[in-house]
Amino acid sequence: MKAVNIGLIGLGTVGTGVAKVLTENQEVLFKKVGVPLVLKKIADRDLSRPRPVDLTGISLTEDAQEVINDPDIDIIIELIGGYEPAKTFILSALKQKKHVVTANKALLALHGEEIFATASQYGVDVAFEASVGGGIPLIKGIKEGLVANKILCLFGILNGTANYILTKMADEGLPFKEVLKQAQVKGFAEADPTFDVEGIDTAHKLAILVALAYGIPIDFDKIYIEGITQIQPLDIQFAQEFGYRIKLLAISRHTSAGIEARVHPTMIPAEHLLANVGGAYNALLVRGDAVGNVLFYGLGAGMMPTGSAVVSDVVDVARNIIKGTSLRTPALAYIPEARETKSILPIDELHFKYYFRFFAVDRPGVLSKISGVLGKYEISIASVVQKGREINGTVPIVMLTHEAKEANVKQALKEIETLDVVRDKPLFIRIEDELMIE
Amino acid sequence: MKAVNIGLIGLGTVGTGVAKVLTENQEVLFKKVGVPLVLKKIADRDLSRPRPVDLTGISLTEDAQEVINDPDIDIIIELIGGYEPAKTFILSALKQKKHVVTANKALLALHGEEIFATASQYGVDVAFEASVGGGIPLIKGIKEGLVANKILCLFGILNGTANYILTKMADEGLPFKEVLKQAQVKGFAEADPTFDVEGIDTAHKLAILVALAYGIPIDFDKIYIEGITQIQPLDIQFAQEFGYRIKLLAISRHTSAGIEARVHPTMIPAEHLLANVGGAYNALLVRGDAVGNVLFYGLGAGMMPTGSAVVSDVVDVARNIIKGTSLRTPALAYIPEARETKSILPIDELHFKYYFRFFAVDRPGVLSKISGVLGKYEISIASVVQKGREINGTVPIVMLTHEAKEANVKQALKEIETLDVVRDKPLFIRIEDELMIE
Repeated sequence: MKAVNIGLIGLGTVGTGVAKVLTENQEVLFKKVGVPLVLKKIADRDLSRPRPVDLTGISLTEDAQEVINDPDIDIIIELIGGYEPAKTFILSALKQKKHVVTANKALLALHGEEIFATASQYGVDVAFEASVGGGIPLIKGIKEGLVANKILCLFGILNGTANYILTKMADEGLPFKEVLKQAQVKGFAEADPTFDVEGIDTAHKLAILVALAYGIPIDFDKIYIEGITQIQPLDIQFAQEFGYRIKLLAISRHTSAGIEARVHPTMIPAEHLLANVGGAYNALLVRGDAVGNVLFYGLGAGMMPTGSAVVSDVVDVARNIIKGTSLRTPALAYIPEARETKSILPIDELHFKYYFRFFAVDRPGVLSKISGVLGKYEISIASVVQKGREINGTVPIVMLTHEAKEANVKQALKEIETLDVVRDKPLFIRIEDELMIE
Repeated sequence: MKAVNIGLIGLGTVGTGVAKVLTENQEVLFKKVGVPLVLKKIADRDLSRPRPVDLTGISLTEDAQEVINDPDIDIIIELIGGYEPAKTFILSALKQKKHVVTANKALLALHGEEIFATASQYGVDVAFEASVGGGIPLIKGIKEGLVANKILCLFGILNGTANYILTKMADEGLPFKEVLKQAQVKGFAEADPTFDVEGIDTAHKLAILVALAYGIPIDFDKIYIEGITQIQPLDIQFAQEFGYRIKLLAISRHTSAGIEARVHPTMIPAEHLLANVGGAYNALLVRGDAVGNVLFYGLGAGMMPTGSAVVSDVVDVARNIIKGTSLRTPALAYIPEARETKSILPIDELHFKYYFRFFAVDRPGVLSKISGVLGKYEISIASVVQKGREINGTVPIVMLTHEAKEANVKQALKEIETLDVVRDKPLFIRIEDELMIE
């Protein structure tokens, strides 16, 4: 084998990182692979913009199909993101028996089943390490490193933007909107931050992980999603007083009762490793029945970290090509015939400990009214803090509960919201305080 | 392919874990591999001892060669530990073109080159995920997950026993010997704990990691090793006052000056993730030129975690067998032709910040005598603490230095030891306070 030829579609931030890694680390890659990895062609709609990478010798085009159709190219890297035309490009490449490497979590979360079925049909590989956790090799970790385990649960900080905002809010006591604005100025948040702050990006990633972990279909629609926009600095402060930090977590558990898969702000013990994952870092805690707890940690985004993950996939696929094989490891961890549909439990049926925050008028009897409603719904209070910090004529009342049923909590809070002494919508945050218990 | 047949040599703790994982997780393994992994034969010198695993249907023997010579067996798992007869068994298996999975870090650290050369010669795989970091898939992480990177440095907590002892000493203020005794009673430390507490086991592991990281030979003899037996509770307490924790670290850096590889107690900032790796947990921080910092964390030993790692290797090798290939990934990350000898820098030439602890008589002029010697050797003091806690008629004097040359430090401390005002051997601990800086 003379060389493995690579075509790249999308020369944005990550595409540029991939081009940099493939060219600047060409020598060390050759020393590990034994065959040159040649970035032959790049397609991008805007080739006029300068990029911080030397593209000498690489053929450039504005036509992605030209890359896909090049008979010399073995591996197509898709880095344009979004659903279309990314999906069309990938399917078109697979049907020409080209292997595909992608970082496109949104596409895999929604159309992964079709893509992987097509790859399997045409006998080629689809690799996607960079789709979850940026540079952290956690997909390989779950699929191969922990292959011997039944995966019991996953806890992940999988969105750097949301984590950066929550970290900043905690460190500086600033409100969400102000931190978001700062993050946008610094380039840590996009102009439209919806996917990041509403938990959608995290849920895309969790949809992929859950499929890998349990051998079930990728089913984004079944994941419960809640973002961080309702969190106020005072919630973070109260959380700290109770010994917790608030993180946007991707959580999944596989128990005898079924599978949970959810994304929401979560209070976790301040001393836990995940609580100390700050800024743009990501982390995933995986618990396997044999291995116990394993944590993967690193930069969840960025030109070079994501480039590192994409190129690790390129090497994996190249090694198959060199050895004349493909589909050596099932794309979704389980062989297609063994994957089975298991339903994801509706969140309303689950039980959690909760943090509640109400704004109420500062008048006798308020607490008794609120706790009366909670009692009616079998929600038992573990502790209450009512502090005299008056905000717009109301005081915050904060409670931690014992385990209660989500459906009951939602009903109770709806009823409490209608009480004449309560202002504003009550906020609840789920608590996970047994992350490390085996 | 009907099945991949496995032979196991050594049914101790880890061997039992492997047998448990292979039998109890047989179904989930089949769902991921698509071909049954059959544990066909087990050899152990003492088969009378009961083990917590159902061995029905598995042929048992006291003769390891019987397992190695069985023509139906594709993969030999070596879990007897030590140098001989483990080495003979492994070489004998390789020469019969059997793939080998081992957790034997001591053997690989000293005889790895011969073993990997033999494997390469006979075209078979040697896998060793369980040799470093127990259940944590960090060998795969470095070899494959971070393949696109030039590895810049490694910082690891790689020995659970030493980490458990230091954690306990810190939490409970107890002296080394007492904590060791407790650990032995609880089964967390061996009857002869030399390899663990003297840093030898950590150095075995670092020798393997360094070879993987930089493509150089495994060369245990070049690794500087210092254990934890000299650390006293008061050092841990002083460290805390300065904002540090003491961990037994495996450290390696690859800079333009050369390669560092060393194992010694190290002061690291208390808020660093590695500082918070407690008890029997292990962790490895790897910095790559593209990916930045990646941390792998999990249980570094134990029946089931180590079993998880061994079986992940079995699956990796089995997937090669199923696809009719082998040596798909170079055993030591780099293709044999590309590996090169680079010397490891002698520690005496390196520069560190240091913590010094002296026991001196409580008399005027002591500090000036000590700092006079330090000045002579160009060691500049960053801070000094002298506290009136008298121990055996002396007081501890503690200093942090700016960067100084190791050779100078050793000379200076030798000279200080001879001062009439100084009692006991001075202690120094190297400080690493820029672990996370890129």
